Amino acid sequence: MRAELVAVGSELLLGTNVDTNSAWISARLAEVGIDVFRHTTVGDNVDRMAEVIGGAAERADAVVVTGGLGPTQDDLTRVAVARLAGVPLERRDDLVDHLHAVFARSGRRMPDNNLVQADLPAGARVLAPVGTAAGFQVRVGDADVFCVPGVPAEMEVMVARDVLPALVERGGLAATVSRLVRTAGLSESGVAETLAPLVERLDAAGNPTVAFLASRGETRVRITGKSATREAALALVDPVVQEVVGLLGVGVTGLDDEGPEHAVARLLRSRGWTLAIAESVSGGNLGARLVTVPGASDWFRGGVLVYATDTKASLAGVDPDLLDREGPVSEATAAALAGAVRARLGADVGLAVVGVAGPAEQGGRPVGTVVVGTAVPDGDATTREVRLPGRSRQQIQEWAASAALDALRRRLAPAEVSM
Amino acid sequence: MRAELVAVGSELLLGTNVDTNSAWISARLAEVGIDVFRHTTVGDNVDRMAEVIGGAAERADAVVVTGGLGPTQDDLTRVAVARLAGVPLERRDDLVDHLHAVFARSGRRMPDNNLVQADLPAGARVLAPVGTAAGFQVRVGDADVFCVPGVPAEMEVMVARDVLPALVERGGLAATVSRLVRTAGLSESGVAETLAPLVERLDAAGNPTVAFLASRGETRVRITGKSATREAALALVDPVVQEVVGLLGVGVTGLDDEGPEHAVARLLRSRGWTLAIAESVSGGNLGARLVTVPGASDWFRGGVLVYATDTKASLAGVDPDLLDREGPVSEATAAALAGAVRARLGADVGLAVVGVAGPAEQGGRPVGTVVVGTAVPDGDATTREVRLPGRSRQQIQEWAASAALDALRRRLAPAEVSM
Repeated sequence: MRAELVAVGSELLLGTNVDTNSAWISARLAEVGIDVFRHTTVGDNVDRMAEVIGGAAERADAVVVTGGLGPTQDDLTRVAVARLAGVPLERRDDLVDHLHAVFARSGRRMPDNNLVQADLPAGARVLAPVGTAAGFQVRVGDADVFCVPGVPAEMEVMVARDVLPALVERGGLAATVSRLVRTAGLSESGVAETLAPLVERLDAAGNPTVAFLASRGETRVRITGKSATREAALALVDPVVQEVVGLLGVGVTGLDDEGPEHAVARLLRSRGWTLAIAESVSGGNLGARLVTVPGASDWFRGGVLVYATDTKASLAGVDPDLLDREGPVSEATAAALAGAVRARLGADVGLAVVGVAGPAEQGGRPVGTVVVGTAVPDGDATTREVRLPGRSRQQIQEWAASAALDALRRRLAPAEVSM
Repeated sequence: MRAELVAVGSELLLGTNVDTNSAWISARLAEVGIDVFRHTTVGDNVDRMAEVIGGAAERADAVVVTGGLGPTQDDLTRVAVARLAGVPLERRDDLVDHLHAVFARSGRRMPDNNLVQADLPAGARVLAPVGTAAGFQVRVGDADVFCVPGVPAEMEVMVARDVLPALVERGGLAATVSRLVRTAGLSESGVAETLAPLVERLDAAGNPTVAFLASRGETRVRITGKSATREAALALVDPVVQEVVGLLGVGVTGLDDEGPEHAVARLLRSRGWTLAIAESVSGGNLGARLVTVPGASDWFRGGVLVYATDTKASLAGVDPDLLDREGPVSEATAAALAGAVRARLGADVGLAVVGVAGPAEQGGRPVGTVVVGTAVPDGDATTREVRLPGRSRQQIQEWAASAALDALRRRLAPAEVSM
């Protein structure tokens, strides 16, 4: 079954609002095995709306239209879809009563123009309003066209309550399941090369499929499978997930929603160890990543933001002579910081990250240089230097946190594949 | 001049990623008076990509395509657009050299399949790569088709540097200018109510227009005006900006790209003061926001991440008896932390934020409680408590940083409207 989504609203074409509805609806449709082939955004112009919605209805079995159901003169979805369905608009008394009731409850007088929200294409199925706007379902050619409000809270209720069941009944037979294998310290192209034979084999069969995504220094491998049920689809996907994990080895940080911060949390918990951090270049991004993990207070002690060079000595306790001799962005300083913050906060593990976010180089180290230091109970402090060339200041600050998390993950689980 | 945008990527149709690029590009095009008539999202399928990009090229004068320029087998934008342009792909030696240089700088071996990133449609104008992926501009029928990477940081540089100037040269005639008035500590509905008479007056005229946006605890007012030139449009917009600033008073943090962190930076610089911070609930988000400001090292000393309760005494130096008596999430503790971290790092100003991110309440304080303490040279430490009910753990951590920035901004500029 093929579906297309249409988002209506000039504010989307002006860029003042981001269309998050289409991604949300697409994810829900994928869960019931309905393929979404296209998203289209069109402005509040009845001719262009009719052209876009009509084109989608010719290509697809189902079209979900969001937006344009409000009470103002810009809200033209009802008009455009009635024209495509070849029927007039008719006023629904039950919706008129609903509008009066809504305004009465909030003690406001109802402006007359709100009554247009009670005008639906003749013969349309009414999707009961969540706020003031009713949705509706109408046939355009061979396609079912569902129109729902653009307000996410109203749209989400209506899609889950009315649209999905109707589509599943019409023929959302298969289920589509996607799982993510998340990696760090591997380039997208390197991952693709490692998995090329697997991808070729899967492409021949066509199900499951593999895709690659890169974000914030992480490469993600998405495995998507289809079958009659979610369980059957998972049975296709999970062996491939295991195969990918085996091929990528220690580069894998986790699955699905588990990022490197979750892997670090799990590895610390498994040893009953606590963590203290020292951040310079990342300015707080490392701590911010760590505390997103629920229950972080069980193992995260805290740390120091040693942004000004002298604070690396005065606050963290690094030997000032070493700091002078080696400079703030150096392996010796990163190692000393990791050991110092570990002692300073009475933690089992110390993690430090220093570097150069720019705009200018620092002490002869180029912009994009990041050095991570780790100190653990059963060994000396070790360091790892990475380069993030050609990145913005903020990217380097964020990626430095990712690099620190990955360095600690690898230090804590050098052999183990972190799952 | 008519433009359309095409976003390429199956992850967008699966709903695992939200397309934010199209809104960003639309806003930039609007600023130079180019109307965007349609956004379309299509998957990694070369036939459907050619259909969608070809259709856009027939309707519009310019098409901006984002995504599908990576090194993997599902990156097919180069192939689809070459087909539409009726030219073969040809390998560019200069791009091959660039790819080798990028990998050499980061000390990694370049996988061979990266070389496909050097294959562009014959005769295309090269848009110099920001990361590894080059963009390109090619003629399809009467339309200029610009293909840029889907990675926002790379896309934004390339669109601003290469795409906009080319389009303006081709005929960005009318200019649309949008300016943002950014506020903190004010609700969207409160701002709308305060500005209702102004908005009514403007709606009657129709130009400029006013819109409201809410994000991360900030309410933003967008004023958009159109005229023949950018200067003339600004002449329409700026008086309204000043009027809005006057009506919203101290709630205004800044204009356009200036967030509360920039306002704080400016206010500290104007006094020649330095800042030290103590973060508990925000876990690093406050520091991360501050260091995004270029030149932060001139005024940001650093701080302490006092996540575990005992570190508020042992690391920051808060009186343990006070901590026991008042609890970690209290006005007394926030004030003591602000004063302690200010002394500890030898800074002029101390800023502390404590609170409860959840999932469970802490010491009888409900989830969403955030208390900010500020200590300045010319006064006692003061505190400000806010509630962020019904938010996720991560939202509370991020909003706590916004609340801290706003509290300090108001402390440093109680009377002044921060502009």
